[in-house]
Amino acid sequence: MNQDFIRLGIIGIGNMGSEHCRNIAAGKCPEIRITAGADLREDRRTWFRENIPEPVEVYESGEDLIHSSDCDAVLICVPHYGHEELAVSAMENGKHVLCEKPAAVTARAARHMCEVSGKTGKTLTFMFNQRTNCLYRGIHDVLSSGEFGKIKRMNWIVTDWYRTQKYYDSGSWRATWAGEGGGVLLNQCPHQLDLLIWLCGMPVSVTAVCHEGKWHHIEVEDDVSVYLEFPGGATGTFIASTGELPGTNRLEIDCEMGKIVCEDGITKCWKLPQNERDICYGSDNPWFSIDPAAYVLRTDGQNPQHIGVLNAFAAHLLRGDPLIAEKEDGLRETILSNAIYLSGWTGKPVTLPADESEYEQRLKEKTAGSALKTGDDITYNTNHTGTGKKDS
Amino acid sequence: MNQDFIRLGIIGIGNMGSEHCRNIAAGKCPEIRITAGADLREDRRTWFRENIPEPVEVYESGEDLIHSSDCDAVLICVPHYGHEELAVSAMENGKHVLCEKPAAVTARAARHMCEVSGKTGKTLTFMFNQRTNCLYRGIHDVLSSGEFGKIKRMNWIVTDWYRTQKYYDSGSWRATWAGEGGGVLLNQCPHQLDLLIWLCGMPVSVTAVCHEGKWHHIEVEDDVSVYLEFPGGATGTFIASTGELPGTNRLEIDCEMGKIVCEDGITKCWKLPQNERDICYGSDNPWFSIDPAAYVLRTDGQNPQHIGVLNAFAAHLLRGDPLIAEKEDGLRETILSNAIYLSGWTGKPVTLPADESEYEQRLKEKTAGSALKTGDDITYNTNHTGTGKKDS
Repeated sequence: MNQDFIRLGIIGIGNMGSEHCRNIAAGKCPEIRITAGADLREDRRTWFRENIPEPVEVYESGEDLIHSSDCDAVLICVPHYGHEELAVSAMENGKHVLCEKPAAVTARAARHMCEVSGKTGKTLTFMFNQRTNCLYRGIHDVLSSGEFGKIKRMNWIVTDWYRTQKYYDSGSWRATWAGEGGGVLLNQCPHQLDLLIWLCGMPVSVTAVCHEGKWHHIEVEDDVSVYLEFPGGATGTFIASTGELPGTNRLEIDCEMGKIVCEDGITKCWKLPQNERDICYGSDNPWFSIDPAAYVLRTDGQNPQHIGVLNAFAAHLLRGDPLIAEKEDGLRETILSNAIYLSGWTGKPVTLPADESEYEQRLKEKTAGSALKTGDDITYNTNHTGTGKKDS
Repeated sequence: MNQDFIRLGIIGIGNMGSEHCRNIAAGKCPEIRITAGADLREDRRTWFRENIPEPVEVYESGEDLIHSSDCDAVLICVPHYGHEELAVSAMENGKHVLCEKPAAVTARAARHMCEVSGKTGKTLTFMFNQRTNCLYRGIHDVLSSGEFGKIKRMNWIVTDWYRTQKYYDSGSWRATWAGEGGGVLLNQCPHQLDLLIWLCGMPVSVTAVCHEGKWHHIEVEDDVSVYLEFPGGATGTFIASTGELPGTNRLEIDCEMGKIVCEDGITKCWKLPQNERDICYGSDNPWFSIDPAAYVLRTDGQNPQHIGVLNAFAAHLLRGDPLIAEKEDGLRETILSNAIYLSGWTGKPVTLPADESEYEQRLKEKTAGSALKTGDDITYNTNHTGTGKKDS
């Protein structure tokens, strides 16, 4: 693009949309100018008018914004089920798209979005802001370099997504099959599932147990245990919950050349002088043992989160710089998530990609039995810029 | 017993048997006197004669010892499949029994041993020496006291059982279905499975994936991932491997009142000021968060391991003092282990207790296809007295 900044329309000015508005309005994204905003609710439109510098256009619906605004790109921050229609419409109307995670509820929807991006030539990317965290970038670099050899196993305990009942009562769509299409897996975990794929590769099969309404009065799952298998033979476990306090966020990756553990804001590495596979078959010692010193993985300390994704998006449109995540990453995360649900619902291992029709049929049954809650939808003025637990 | 010490016969003077001999001969068990020993191999009998103070009787077989020696009790240290017959014979011939872990390969065998103990009135107990570790005793005390409320989840990664191919090549019976009846679960993990039951209670169901010969040229499993459910609704994962270096031994127990993590030789606790269940339904904060300071669980620092089990056994026989583990603990561990195998073999969740006939039928099929290895059986002069990784 032959311009100094991109003109961005924001669709959905709730929790996340308003957060992005604040960041951009505060000058943290110098290559982005907010030129339009849309929300179904008047109080949010009022907030938007009062907080975003003129000139801005304000619309009641995303479709109105897409058709009337001449912005370059839209940022989609509406509930998951609305992603596909808005993203497709935006791209078909000449606008690039940055969409909140997850890409969509169903892999079919995410695939459709990717196809439209390919067809229209419009950029499509997703808010996988945890990829900007230096801890995960550091692990990605180390694993990509090959210095730890092949991965044998990963265990990720992600139980620091604590939510009270009040959280689930704050929106009528929240934690319902009809309104959200899932629980902790779909709302909180897309980041970790995306990172899991980014760091360890796409699993070939999953076996999951999803407990619905275990810790809260909700109809969707709030407690998940998954066993994963990867193409190269590596295995993994993924544990998530919104009902544990204080939770844990501990990622362990065991490799042929040692192990990597990320917890409490640091990544520790234990590096072997030799490939374990060679030790196994080469050593004369039945109980071979070694205790390599742990070292802290050095990083650049940068963790720009949403701002990093926004700035990369602008730089990509303006100069072709790399995005934080490709559109296929959004699709992959949805494929993994759908497979975990299907395994949880059927009680059986699921080979990836899951049978989309079966997944959708079962989701439809869940949705048919879903009770959208009554009550006011509340927009919280939360700070999502940090790296802490609220970052969803 | 109206005497100052028990007279102990040791059956099997291999790795573990000779270790116990050394400890007792070194005066670490003042209430135990070794009065007899049995081993099929002459070199071991010779070692026994040369290392155990007179008077001792030496036998070629455990049955000979049981029938001819007038010892008060026997310590059974032969491969697992031999436990039942020797223990039953010993009890029926008036001798108390301390048996190496696991109690037996099959729950049916372990139950038979328990029944004979009940019928004969002879004491039966097992070498669950990890129960003497102050770390696990400390956790047991805290959980039993109720101050952490109900357990919600446990995750145990036990991948510090590293073994090279040389280990598996060191005995023709090792790591074969015919000779040992299992791999890492049966040989290395009985301690952790027993502790898991002791600390968290008996699971009601398990779903397991057992990879056979994944990291070694063996026919049994060396890599196991288990998902567990407990009667109160708690869930868990249990991960074990002999193919990871450096491995991990990390036990996390999440409770209503906080969490407990045991790793690297210390147990850390995070204690909530209030039950999480009350916070969940009582707090007005959707993203309630709390960061209680971790404290190290204080222990008595004692970790007598095998010596502790031996001394408790003697004190029980002499004065009725409590054992380290009851006979039913050995049975329970075997029931859990059998269920994990059956789940792994069938690829389905298994409710405890597993169908014993189905388990045994499948084990029989495995055994029929088993190839006992050729080669010399090697007895390693290992030090098993510590708390380290060799302690099996």
